[in-house]
Amino acid sequence: MHILVLGAAGMVGRKFVERLTRDGRLGKSDVTRMTLQDVVAPTKPNTSIPVEVVTCDVAEQAAVAKLVAAKPDVIFHLAAIVSGEAEADFDKGYRINLDGTRYLIDAIRAIGDGYKPRVVFTSSIAVFGAPFPEKIGDEFFTTPLTSYGTQKAIGELLISDYTRKGLLDGVSIRLPTICVRPGLPNKAASGFFSNIIREPLAGKEAILPVSEDVRHWHASPRSAVGFLLHAATMDTSTIGPRRALSMPGLSATVGEQIAALTRVAGPSVTARIRHQPDPTIVGIVAGWPRDFVTDRALKLGFTTTEKTFDDIIRIHIEDELGGTFVS
Amino acid sequence: MHILVLGAAGMVGRKFVERLTRDGRLGKSDVTRMTLQDVVAPTKPNTSIPVEVVTCDVAEQAAVAKLVAAKPDVIFHLAAIVSGEAEADFDKGYRINLDGTRYLIDAIRAIGDGYKPRVVFTSSIAVFGAPFPEKIGDEFFTTPLTSYGTQKAIGELLISDYTRKGLLDGVSIRLPTICVRPGLPNKAASGFFSNIIREPLAGKEAILPVSEDVRHWHASPRSAVGFLLHAATMDTSTIGPRRALSMPGLSATVGEQIAALTRVAGPSVTARIRHQPDPTIVGIVAGWPRDFVTDRALKLGFTTTEKTFDDIIRIHIEDELGGTFVS
Repeated sequence: MHILVLGAAGMVGRKFVERLTRDGRLGKSDVTRMTLQDVVAPTKPNTSIPVEVVTCDVAEQAAVAKLVAAKPDVIFHLAAIVSGEAEADFDKGYRINLDGTRYLIDAIRAIGDGYKPRVVFTSSIAVFGAPFPEKIGDEFFTTPLTSYGTQKAIGELLISDYTRKGLLDGVSIRLPTICVRPGLPNKAASGFFSNIIREPLAGKEAILPVSEDVRHWHASPRSAVGFLLHAATMDTSTIGPRRALSMPGLSATVGEQIAALTRVAGPSVTARIRHQPDPTIVGIVAGWPRDFVTDRALKLGFTTTEKTFDDIIRIHIEDELGGTFVS
Repeated sequence: MHILVLGAAGMVGRKFVERLTRDGRLGKSDVTRMTLQDVVAPTKPNTSIPVEVVTCDVAEQAAVAKLVAAKPDVIFHLAAIVSGEAEADFDKGYRINLDGTRYLIDAIRAIGDGYKPRVVFTSSIAVFGAPFPEKIGDEFFTTPLTSYGTQKAIGELLISDYTRKGLLDGVSIRLPTICVRPGLPNKAASGFFSNIIREPLAGKEAILPVSEDVRHWHASPRSAVGFLLHAATMDTSTIGPRRALSMPGLSATVGEQIAALTRVAGPSVTARIRHQPDPTIVGIVAGWPRDFVTDRALKLGFTTTEKTFDDIIRIHIEDELGGTFVS
C-alpha cells in the first residue's frame, strides 16, 4: 500500500508518520511505500519502507499532479496554512487551503482510469462560529468566523461532492484543538491551552490569559493520529454522502485542566501558571466552540485515547517527556 | 446609482431588470446606469436609463474584472449553470458557479480603494440535502446532494468571508423553487411544479410525474424579484457575519396546488393534468426540501407577495397571461 501524506512536516503529520512507520501497516495492509510532502522538507523516517520526501507547495499545481500521478492508495491531506496566518495573509490562505485542495482532488479526477483513492482531509472545529449552543451537534450549520474556517468548510463540501460523484472516497475529520501540543509556545490564540500544561511540566512559567471558567474542546496528539488511521481504514460504504465528521474529544474548562495538572504532577507544577488576563485573547476565545455531541463519529467507530484530562497530561508525559517531568 | 446584473438574461434576471426599469430607482436612489451581463445577450430594456449590455461568460476572468472596474454600487450575481447541467457537465458547473463567483469577488477586492459594493448572491435551497426535518430551520447544516448545491454553498461561504473581511457587503439569498415559471416546459426534474399550473391555463395538457402528497417549497417570480430588491436595500449593519438567508416561501403539496388551480380556474382546467408517475423523478424529488422555518429572513424584513397558492396562480395569470386563461 502506497501512502501519500501532504503536510507531513507539521505536528500531526510528523506524529502520524512516526506511527505509520512503527506499525508498518495501515489496517490490514502492509505499507510498501510512503511519499511525504511538505513545504519544508519532512524528516525522512528511519524505516525499511521506501520513503520519498518531496518539498513543494500544495498550491504548485504541477507538483501536486506529479504526487498524485503515482496513484497512492491513501492520501492524507493535512497541508494547511493555519488560522492566524490565513487571517493575516488572505491570498496565501486561499491559495494553499482552497486552491491547493482543489488541485489535489482535480489531479485525482484527472487520472480518470477508475482510480479512486481514500482521501482523509483534516478539517477543524473552526468551521463553526459563535453564537452556537453549549454542545454543537452533528447537524449544526457551519458559519466560520475566520478565513481558515471558511476554507476548511469549503474543503469539506468539495470532498463530499467529489465523493458523491465517485471521483474519490473522502472523509473529512474535524479535529478538536490538539492538546498538549509539543514544542515551543507559539503565538496562536489557542496556544495557552497547551502552554499551561507543557511549560510547567518542563519547569517553566506559563501565562494564562483567560479566566479558569473558559471551556474548550480537546484531543491528544495520540487521538488525532488514531482519527487519521480510522478515517483511512473504516468501511465508507455505509456512510452516505455526508463525509464531514466532528471528531470526538474532551470538553474541559481551564480550571479543570489545572486541577488535572495538580493531580497528575502536583501543586508545585501548577504553581508555575501565572494568571495574566489578555482582553484580546479573551475576546477571540469567547467565539470558540466549547463542547460537542459527536454521535455520528462515535457510531462510525472513532474513539479518543483519553477518557479524562488527566489522561491527556499523562499521554504528553509519556510521549514527549520520556515519562518524567520537573516536579 | 449604477447597477450591475450578472445573469440578466435568465428568467429571474429578466423579471428583475423589468421591475428595476419600471421603478427607475432602487430603494431611495435613482438608477442612473445599468450594466446587464449574460452569456447570451440580455434584451436591452426600453428605458431612458443608460444601459450597457455585455455578452460574456462569468468564468472569463478579464471580462468580469472589466465589469467590476466601473465600480457599480450594487451587484446582483444571478449567473449560474443550473442544477441539471452542473450535474451533467462537472467542469462547466465548477467553472461558472465556483470560479466565476471567485473571479467576481476577487475583482471587487482588487479595486482596493475602499470600494465595497452591496453584492446580492442568489443561492438555492439545493444547499440542503436529505435527510432533513420536515421544516428546515435557519441553523440546519448544508449537505448538498448535487454539484450545483455544493457550488452555491461554497458561494455563500465566500460571500460571508469576504463580507466579514470588509471586502464587500454581501447577502446570499436562498430562493425557493420559483413557481409558476413562465415559458416552455423544461426538462428540469422540478419543472412539473410549474408545468401543472402553466400548461393547463394555456389550454394544454401537463404531466404530473409524482403523487399528490409530494410537498415542496415555492415562491412566485414576483416574490423572487422582491427578495432581490430587499437584499439590495436592507440595512446590513446589524446582520453580522452570517450572510446566507433562507428566503420565505410557501409550502404546498401537489394536491394543494391542484386544489388551488381548481378554485382559481375551475375543474375543466385542472382536468388537463395527466397523472403519469415517473419513478426517476419520484426518486429525485424525495430528496428535496419540503418546508422551512425562515425566522431570520422574516425578521430582516423579507416578505412574499403571495399568502396562498391561489395567489401564486393569480400572479401568474396577471403577470404572464394578461389576466386571462383558457377555461
